[in-house]
Amino acid sequence: MTQSTSGGPTRLAAIGLGRWARIMASAYYRSEDVDLVSCFTRNPERRARFAADYGCGEDDSLEALLSRDDIEGVIVTVPNDQHASVIEAAARAGKHVYVEKPVAVDAADIKRIRAAVTEANIVFACGHSARRLAGVREMRRCLDTGEIGTPSMVEAVFSNERGLELNEGDWRGDPERAPGGPLTQLGIHHIDNLNYLFGVPRRVVAMGRQGAPRVSNTMVVGALMEFDDVIGFLGNDWLTPGAFTMDLYATVARLRYELDFSWWSDSADTDAHARLIKVQFDSHGDDPDARVLSERPVQLDARNHLREEIDEFARAIRGRGEVEVDLETAVANVAVMMATLRALKEQRAVDVEETMSELS
Amino acid sequence: MTQSTSGGPTRLAAIGLGRWARIMASAYYRSEDVDLVSCFTRNPERRARFAADYGCGEDDSLEALLSRDDIEGVIVTVPNDQHASVIEAAARAGKHVYVEKPVAVDAADIKRIRAAVTEANIVFACGHSARRLAGVREMRRCLDTGEIGTPSMVEAVFSNERGLELNEGDWRGDPERAPGGPLTQLGIHHIDNLNYLFGVPRRVVAMGRQGAPRVSNTMVVGALMEFDDVIGFLGNDWLTPGAFTMDLYATVARLRYELDFSWWSDSADTDAHARLIKVQFDSHGDDPDARVLSERPVQLDARNHLREEIDEFARAIRGRGEVEVDLETAVANVAVMMATLRALKEQRAVDVEETMSELS
Repeated sequence: MTQSTSGGPTRLAAIGLGRWARIMASAYYRSEDVDLVSCFTRNPERRARFAADYGCGEDDSLEALLSRDDIEGVIVTVPNDQHASVIEAAARAGKHVYVEKPVAVDAADIKRIRAAVTEANIVFACGHSARRLAGVREMRRCLDTGEIGTPSMVEAVFSNERGLELNEGDWRGDPERAPGGPLTQLGIHHIDNLNYLFGVPRRVVAMGRQGAPRVSNTMVVGALMEFDDVIGFLGNDWLTPGAFTMDLYATVARLRYELDFSWWSDSADTDAHARLIKVQFDSHGDDPDARVLSERPVQLDARNHLREEIDEFARAIRGRGEVEVDLETAVANVAVMMATLRALKEQRAVDVEETMSELS
Repeated sequence: MTQSTSGGPTRLAAIGLGRWARIMASAYYRSEDVDLVSCFTRNPERRARFAADYGCGEDDSLEALLSRDDIEGVIVTVPNDQHASVIEAAARAGKHVYVEKPVAVDAADIKRIRAAVTEANIVFACGHSARRLAGVREMRRCLDTGEIGTPSMVEAVFSNERGLELNEGDWRGDPERAPGGPLTQLGIHHIDNLNYLFGVPRRVVAMGRQGAPRVSNTMVVGALMEFDDVIGFLGNDWLTPGAFTMDLYATVARLRYELDFSWWSDSADTDAHARLIKVQFDSHGDDPDARVLSERPVQLDARNHLREEIDEFARAIRGRGEVEVDLETAVANVAVMMATLRALKEQRAVDVEETMSELS
């Protein structure tokens, strides 16, 4: 593990410089906690553009980047199936690792990642930023204080139009590389949100369908999840204008969270384009037909979900605090995702314990 | 079958005079198509109050009411497990029948009802009024015209707080008399809405939980349904402030329908307290991060869901038009409900064909 006694910002590098790497960098590159030192992707033009846009250096190979002594941690946004090899290399070089969700999509990769992270004793964080959205934090607060009463049901939907634009050869359209389509790519966020709010579900059932014009991958996945306290629905749809919603039903009130998906990637402004609505009784007499429901917005203070997780990662590297979404939380999310994929493929109820045990 | 050549309003009587009978009567008793002639329930005080409030006569037995020549049809709102015997008696007396949903909750009752209705050749209507809500009609129009594109996913949630108030001995708290709790009592409305929009699903899986303070019945039911075109989620929850929502996801737009449940039983005002929101792209360029979603309310013209179905029933008795929700539609809804109950009980995917065949 690279040791540092520096009091300045943590020196990080970006590996994988696609669209999401740029969105992430836009969120963190001016952070006081972060000094973006270098970047790497195979494509030289893309690399040069990233370096110029975010004011960092660049390395012309992964090996070169990882061998530098002045880099403490790496931000990994390569495709899912390359996570394990990049993380292994980074961990061997003693670099702390932040990796985009999902941490991996198969058991072998999870085991390689766990072995590498444990061996190197590095700080490891997985990018489940959605739980940092102001509305999701507020839902958790309402559950913790008990002010909405006892919860019984939750719905979480994450949808967008990407499936309509996939072309043959795109890895997201390939059932092997992005199994479950929007489940792996979008639903994993809500799997973490549900984990954050209600823990790991016991059991999952699922239904899915295809329907994209040019690729064979699953485009819609619906899942039911049995938590200790609530029945959950997870909806994932790649064939429709963006939706990111959560509905939480409890005895005193129900909460509806909606995010304007156009602002999803502008993480400094995401919360300003989201709303949390609380529905409860204004009057609650014996006559059910005379009861009056009220619907009121809950005040949400703006946060910055993408920057927060990188700042936290940077500070944890320096021993200031811990990361919230560590490897075991990320693996639990993958176990739920794999249970859902298995429920979908085998059309049966799957105990999450079953997939969880395969990942340990 | 009672024949009538009268040109005046159709002469109807109400059987079962509980809360819902009064809500129904409030909707239809001043209708030009209806002349409410009589009413019956065993409790004399309740009967007298109903007769006084809705300006009708009363009969002191079901037999007396059904033997009257001046009554053409009956509006039946007795508990579910009494539907079959009341409908048999009415059909034998040649009275046309409107019955509250669900038409019945077991196969034996369905068969008795079908035999009685077929034998007597009466007009038979089942009270699935929710499909007449302006917002549900508009969703159907949007699907028919294709203006929202191809649908892929739908969510339908119907919840209220009744489970929190059930006491031991209440038939709604009894798993035998109201199996599935809110599924039988609330979800059946959305099962019909989904049937109206997407047809009968092929297959169902479900999860449920208890949780009411004083009764043992299921209080939350979540179900996934596989339709020809879409994956559906049906949510039913008896432990939370009222919710009646539908979310329809399609390629060009998604629609969210919300009803203020406080106005559910004031059917002349229900549509004025509902909204349908359409989310679609205002700009849709190649860069997914630059796309802008817009959210706009869709204009809904007020209808009157409860009165419409009684008016339609009254006119059909006189040969003017047909009822929209006939026995076979109501039975298909029960088949879906029974498949969901079985999926819940046996924790497996159930083909609707399986329950449908048991009802024929």
